[in-house]
Amino acid sequence: MLHDPNHLYIFDTTLRDGEQVPGCQLTTPEKIEIAKDLESLGVDIIEAGFPVSSPGDFQSVVELSKAVDDVIICALTRANKNDIDVAADALKYAKRPRIHTGIGSSDMHIKYKFNSSREEILERAVAAVKHAKSYVEDVEFYAEDAGRADLGYLSQMVEAVIAAGATVVNIPDTNGYCLPDQYGSKIQYLKDHVRNIDQAIISAHCHNDLGLATANSIAAVQHGARQVECTINGIGERAGNTSLEEVAMILKVHQQQFPGLTSNINSTMFTAISRKVSAMMRMPVQPNKAIVGKNAFAHSSGIHQDGFLKHRENYEIIRPEDVGLDEADIILTARSGRHALKHHLERLGYQLDKDQLAATYEKFLILADGKKDLCDDDLKALMQA
Amino acid sequence: MLHDPNHLYIFDTTLRDGEQVPGCQLTTPEKIEIAKDLESLGVDIIEAGFPVSSPGDFQSVVELSKAVDDVIICALTRANKNDIDVAADALKYAKRPRIHTGIGSSDMHIKYKFNSSREEILERAVAAVKHAKSYVEDVEFYAEDAGRADLGYLSQMVEAVIAAGATVVNIPDTNGYCLPDQYGSKIQYLKDHVRNIDQAIISAHCHNDLGLATANSIAAVQHGARQVECTINGIGERAGNTSLEEVAMILKVHQQQFPGLTSNINSTMFTAISRKVSAMMRMPVQPNKAIVGKNAFAHSSGIHQDGFLKHRENYEIIRPEDVGLDEADIILTARSGRHALKHHLERLGYQLDKDQLAATYEKFLILADGKKDLCDDDLKALMQA
Repeated sequence: MLHDPNHLYIFDTTLRDGEQVPGCQLTTPEKIEIAKDLESLGVDIIEAGFPVSSPGDFQSVVELSKAVDDVIICALTRANKNDIDVAADALKYAKRPRIHTGIGSSDMHIKYKFNSSREEILERAVAAVKHAKSYVEDVEFYAEDAGRADLGYLSQMVEAVIAAGATVVNIPDTNGYCLPDQYGSKIQYLKDHVRNIDQAIISAHCHNDLGLATANSIAAVQHGARQVECTINGIGERAGNTSLEEVAMILKVHQQQFPGLTSNINSTMFTAISRKVSAMMRMPVQPNKAIVGKNAFAHSSGIHQDGFLKHRENYEIIRPEDVGLDEADIILTARSGRHALKHHLERLGYQLDKDQLAATYEKFLILADGKKDLCDDDLKALMQA
Repeated sequence: MLHDPNHLYIFDTTLRDGEQVPGCQLTTPEKIEIAKDLESLGVDIIEAGFPVSSPGDFQSVVELSKAVDDVIICALTRANKNDIDVAADALKYAKRPRIHTGIGSSDMHIKYKFNSSREEILERAVAAVKHAKSYVEDVEFYAEDAGRADLGYLSQMVEAVIAAGATVVNIPDTNGYCLPDQYGSKIQYLKDHVRNIDQAIISAHCHNDLGLATANSIAAVQHGARQVECTINGIGERAGNTSLEEVAMILKVHQQQFPGLTSNINSTMFTAISRKVSAMMRMPVQPNKAIVGKNAFAHSSGIHQDGFLKHRENYEIIRPEDVGLDEADIILTARSGRHALKHHLERLGYQLDKDQLAATYEKFLILADGKKDLCDDDLKALMQA
């Protein structure tokens, strides 16, 4: 087997599935800058583009292949000879090239997209893998819309493409349709029914149309998937792809649930790389985005601030420094309690006894009810009033 | 039993757990406007505030109680007499009042936040419920940090507060720590071990620190929870709460997974209410947010656009009109295919045969490689070139 079954491969598709989003297109130098950051972050595979789609995308795959050393560079194709020939050409400078080919596997795609039959689609799938294999050792196959495919047919397709040489089999929930237990069961079914499944790595490729991409990817790993396809900030078409940072932090926080599974991700780079991708792709990250949102580590309610100041693990499951942030915020609003006010006043050099604090807190609440949040100058004015 | 066990109660806390976020504070008239929209949307319960926390919040609960008729108005308290007295006073005009009281249930909270013992906390929980019950029939109890609580102790606490009169028991994953299978198992454990559990509704209150709030809430419903606590756009402290719109659309798309479960939500209001909450609370929604993001229904890649134009169900599991959007977008970029180009040129009145389309597509790709996306004027210029 080409890949290690005890490693969780992080397959980043920010520069392919992410970059095809309206407004997110990058220049080749921008892509190289992000690819080098992804290499430092520790991703295992970078999907660099879809070479046949445009001359610019072809050239990006060529340049990214030259620019990185340790990471597998992957190029997307449809299941036809020309796409694969062009991808192989684009990958010619890659030290570790991978071709990612595939075709629809659901009856809906077979009928309405390809106007074809299950038998003919199976033949095209096998032929594509064999052709890709004539160029590179590492061939990933995607069974598009696997989320809605018949399980028996999907197993047959997966078995056939592994026999044809696929080293990774990608089971995409193309439309973000599955519930986590359904997607996990699908992966388990393949583990249990595809005779040669141990010769390949199963990959989860999820979309976030129902807000479940991360949960579905984790369910897949729990049932035996060993590659997760994801993007920085969860960017991607429609509601986006699985968020790389969410998957990585779940594995870190819940390590004991995934015994023996290794990963190369250096989470302390998350804040910096999230901000760079957001800025370059002009794709804002909402303040309440998990892990990388501006407020992800900001405590504001009185109950929480009080508990947090007594013992930070009361309300903190990830240390902000683990994702490259300096420290958690204790933000003052009308919902803050006495402990938080005292914390900030002490930071500014004011020492108050219990009665002084109680009196100041009353004045603070009146001020805070009329304002969105309070800054240090507001506090100084309060102390001088 | 006060509540219907075949109904999924949607408990909106946009105006309490959402509003306490830094920068999100609303005036009372703004809260009334949103509350009326939530009533039209069909939510069952509005958590209107935490009356003891500030005079402004107290007044908001009073005014919201007067402003809505059909929805339960809920006020938050800690497990002490004064909080509950103040909440009952704030709720005096509510047609259907609910007091939401509770206390920490994990050993970490018991030890480091309350400096107390399991026995004493249990007594305080029961006393709080009894005191709340002296004012209102409908009392919800939250077992804070239930996500990390000992299951035996949690069961004991839940049983005791139901015996004391709680009509709803809220099992919060306060820190967004649980994986969906863990959270679902916790709910199942309570269903199986709490002797009087059928006398109350179990509520899921999840946070999104690991990106799993929606998945955890759905897992809870699969295991017997009948109330989900959520906010519009998933706003809330840190990485936010469960997104109301995601939960509602999952129940709609996967209706057959939840047989006999009713809900009152009118999903066609989602786009409008999402935009209003975002604007009023100055809380941007990222373009790739599920259901309500700007790009949630935008198809951009060639493979997807082609399949979508042949048969929209190939790539669409929710009709945009079901969430109040006019139509799905087919956006032109360098990753678009011939079908998408033809679609837009025909929309502008150009009819091309196959050869003309092929020639125009070559020119289109060169133009598109240099641009983020293309507008109608670009297409007209292309046709005149």
